Amino acid sequence: MSSISDSVPQRGRRRRGRRAAAVPGVLEQLPWAQPRYLDPPTEPLDEEGIERVHDAAMRICEEIGIDFLHDEAREILKRAGCEVRGDSPTVRMGRDFIMEQVAKAPETITLTPRNPERAVVFGGPWAAFGLVASPPNASDLDGGRRIGNRKDYQDLLKLAQSFNCIHFTGGYPVEPVDLHASTRHLDALFDILTLTDKLVHAYSLGIERVEDAMEMVRIAAGLTAEEFDAAPRMFTNINSSSPLKHDWPMLDGAMRHARHNQLVIVTPFTLSGAMAPVTLAGALAQQTAECLACLALLQLVRPGAPVAYGSFTSNVDMKSGAPAFGTPEYVRATQISGQLARRYRLPWRASNANAANYPDAQATWESAASLWACSTARANIVYHAAGWLEGGLCASFEKFVIDCEMLQQLAAYHQPIGVSEEDLAVDAIREVGPAGHFLGADHTQARYKTAFYSPFLSDWSNFETWEESGSVEAPRRANRLFKQVLEEYTPPPMDSGALEALTAFVEKRRAEGGAPTDF
Amino acid sequence: MSSISDSVPQRGRRRRGRRAAAVPGVLEQLPWAQPRYLDPPTEPLDEEGIERVHDAAMRICEEIGIDFLHDEAREILKRAGCEVRGDSPTVRMGRDFIMEQVAKAPETITLTPRNPERAVVFGGPWAAFGLVASPPNASDLDGGRRIGNRKDYQDLLKLAQSFNCIHFTGGYPVEPVDLHASTRHLDALFDILTLTDKLVHAYSLGIERVEDAMEMVRIAAGLTAEEFDAAPRMFTNINSSSPLKHDWPMLDGAMRHARHNQLVIVTPFTLSGAMAPVTLAGALAQQTAECLACLALLQLVRPGAPVAYGSFTSNVDMKSGAPAFGTPEYVRATQISGQLARRYRLPWRASNANAANYPDAQATWESAASLWACSTARANIVYHAAGWLEGGLCASFEKFVIDCEMLQQLAAYHQPIGVSEEDLAVDAIREVGPAGHFLGADHTQARYKTAFYSPFLSDWSNFETWEESGSVEAPRRANRLFKQVLEEYTPPPMDSGALEALTAFVEKRRAEGGAPTDF
Repeated sequence: MSSISDSVPQRGRRRRGRRAAAVPGVLEQLPWAQPRYLDPPTEPLDEEGIERVHDAAMRICEEIGIDFLHDEAREILKRAGCEVRGDSPTVRMGRDFIMEQVAKAPETITLTPRNPERAVVFGGPWAAFGLVASPPNASDLDGGRRIGNRKDYQDLLKLAQSFNCIHFTGGYPVEPVDLHASTRHLDALFDILTLTDKLVHAYSLGIERVEDAMEMVRIAAGLTAEEFDAAPRMFTNINSSSPLKHDWPMLDGAMRHARHNQLVIVTPFTLSGAMAPVTLAGALAQQTAECLACLALLQLVRPGAPVAYGSFTSNVDMKSGAPAFGTPEYVRATQISGQLARRYRLPWRASNANAANYPDAQATWESAASLWACSTARANIVYHAAGWLEGGLCASFEKFVIDCEMLQQLAAYHQPIGVSEEDLAVDAIREVGPAGHFLGADHTQARYKTAFYSPFLSDWSNFETWEESGSVEAPRRANRLFKQVLEEYTPPPMDSGALEALTAFVEKRRAEGGAPTDF
Repeated sequence: MSSISDSVPQRGRRRRGRRAAAVPGVLEQLPWAQPRYLDPPTEPLDEEGIERVHDAAMRICEEIGIDFLHDEAREILKRAGCEVRGDSPTVRMGRDFIMEQVAKAPETITLTPRNPERAVVFGGPWAAFGLVASPPNASDLDGGRRIGNRKDYQDLLKLAQSFNCIHFTGGYPVEPVDLHASTRHLDALFDILTLTDKLVHAYSLGIERVEDAMEMVRIAAGLTAEEFDAAPRMFTNINSSSPLKHDWPMLDGAMRHARHNQLVIVTPFTLSGAMAPVTLAGALAQQTAECLACLALLQLVRPGAPVAYGSFTSNVDMKSGAPAFGTPEYVRATQISGQLARRYRLPWRASNANAANYPDAQATWESAASLWACSTARANIVYHAAGWLEGGLCASFEKFVIDCEMLQQLAAYHQPIGVSEEDLAVDAIREVGPAGHFLGADHTQARYKTAFYSPFLSDWSNFETWEESGSVEAPRRANRLFKQVLEEYTPPPMDSGALEALTAFVEKRRAEGGAPTDF
């Protein structure tokens, strides 16, 4: 693990961070940087427990098999010695084969978007936070909840660019439904690549969309095809159709990414009690089987391809069948997923999830639990880190700001505590003495500006002041802040040649009709 | 640590828990039980770091000294060899002396209130949660914020009795200002002892109040004086007047408790940047010095007296000087306090604190951070666990319910995860197969009722349903719930002889004029 800090020099990162500090005045925030987890991970299972989950996952792959709904994928696996019976989609593979393939994957991955100063590391002690991805609806306190549209889509991207705690976009922050489905991916990715300079994701939704996305990322960064393939520049996240099934579009997109050396996160959709067993151990075994079987395929496609273990296991409400997030079970499932990812030496993706309908106390305790799960378990890739509401059915502008506040606090939490003689302050205590106050002490004056984390959303005024200024609750403060940040937004610089080429590509592909819409 | 589970047999605790499950119908909750932390503690400092904080604390006690504003206390310390110069309140004591005295204190303490089934253990892997204590104001959504009064005071006690996740009261949940100060402690403690049967606290606010409180706890439990002294039945929490000072009432009450074998928690009020150094290490060194110096005194008063290390270190907002809670600094200070308490083999008190003015997202992220601090650091005594708002200036009825929901989730989180063959569910996965769903599986049907934690406050319905039913946010749901619980409240049974004697004692002391009000 120690090599990771070498690959991303701290000094360089800090210097970049200061330069990138955005939106002065309105938004006082921490500089761009990836948090580095300080604490050892919380590990609910002992080694034997983890081996039991691993063994169950291997038995699922060996005895039950995973369905791969993709002829070429099955052919590749068959050639490698996996068991494929006739036309059956089911592939059975042995544990030795799986572990041999998975061992080829890198333990940490540096992904470099069009702005190299926004490079992020997935793996090791590093955390990276992503914008909410893929909800069909958006909401704010002014306009209420509405079907996704390009305006909201663009505004959420602008926020993601403005807040330094967001390291990547993990898909469309809301589905821009007013864009025609055949060319939506062209316009949507054009917006991402021009409104932000951060790491981007491509949906695995058919050959054209995937190839267009890779081409656009390449063009936006001004890279040759060879340069693009030389290192990870982007990623896709695919979900299995749990239980035990990988669908064609996901497999196809994943293999295309792997061939080009681009990262694939494989995240089974194992909701315990619905698409996975009602027991957490069972759901995690199934999650592991579905994930590793696909990762093995991708290592056959390109040995050493960058891949990540994705976890999403939560429970459903057994009274209604509704998915629940940020629950005690979710926290434990997340922590155990971290143990499993580390067992396989893979970067690991988890999420900041909740099932509330409003950015209220419930949304916050569920999100806080999800984020503490990520923090205590050292999640590398925190999907949906800001803005997710309603179990993923809505992107909330206010929740985005609330989440960013929590993300910054998490980053501040992972700063080392000094215990030097100066930190221990015995002389300052002697100087102040029993009748005194530390506010005026030299020791305080020399440090007070940077001693403590300073939040942008907390209101710490007393009740009377708070009431006199309108009794403004946190979501309303978040509402004011995101609108101010949007007003001050300026797009990140882009090479004019790259912008021209990107625009031309989108127009060419639009003229060609874009992508099929029968997915 | 393993002996602790022996001293509080799990089977007995569970059985009691089922019997104690309260308010059927309105409030579906977990049975009465103390959570037992599963995870090893998060320890921000390494052993050397902790020794450096310890060494600084010892230097403060040795070189600077702590003021003890109590003649008898200074006399006791002087007789034991501590340095007291003339009339100076300052006492200097050596580290060997301090460590020798502190080593006499018990590592875990069982406290038995008038209902022995409500006994709680402070120490080891056990958590105990207390009702919010000592705010001057109360609020709910209906009546807004008001000065504390007996009605609110009683209602909060009724809630504390009704919610199984509350293990003790840590003082008055709100100050009943409409009770005359001279007899307030009599009426207030009468209410606590009759409306609840849980562990109670007495304020160290003068001889009469302390002696009256101990007498009332003794009478309510139907104990002789000898029986009362035989084991801890109650406790007091005292704060130092940081920096470096213990005031007379606190010291006097603490010594009276110690003499009667009742627990004393010593909690320095070390807000970093105000009453303590701006550096966390300095504030924690000062906290430790102030605490241990007093604990040493109490061990002289009664060797082996039950005492606890109290931590409250947080930071102030350096822009306004306002106290802040649930901050990254608060979490780290709390975790390091846990390390220090374990170093001294003492039960440890922390808090669920926040500085918000409304039970909104801010109140929740700050409280969630405080509770995760307690959980990751294995806090034994969680003060203000439910109901605290405004940095302790207000008891919120809605926040009480929200906190109880978080407390229950924390308890559920500390349940072991099974990895038996049945838990791993490979056969169930085989049976369901790639086209299936687990909801109808035998494996699910046999477990679904108890598989997952079931919250009482979360609304997991979809947005449309939530909107149709009035878009009820979490605080409003909490408001409905606490009123229903109050409607169904029934007081815990009490021996009629004890009630009569308690009533007579209160009347006698009222006739005598109660306690002086010149404190």
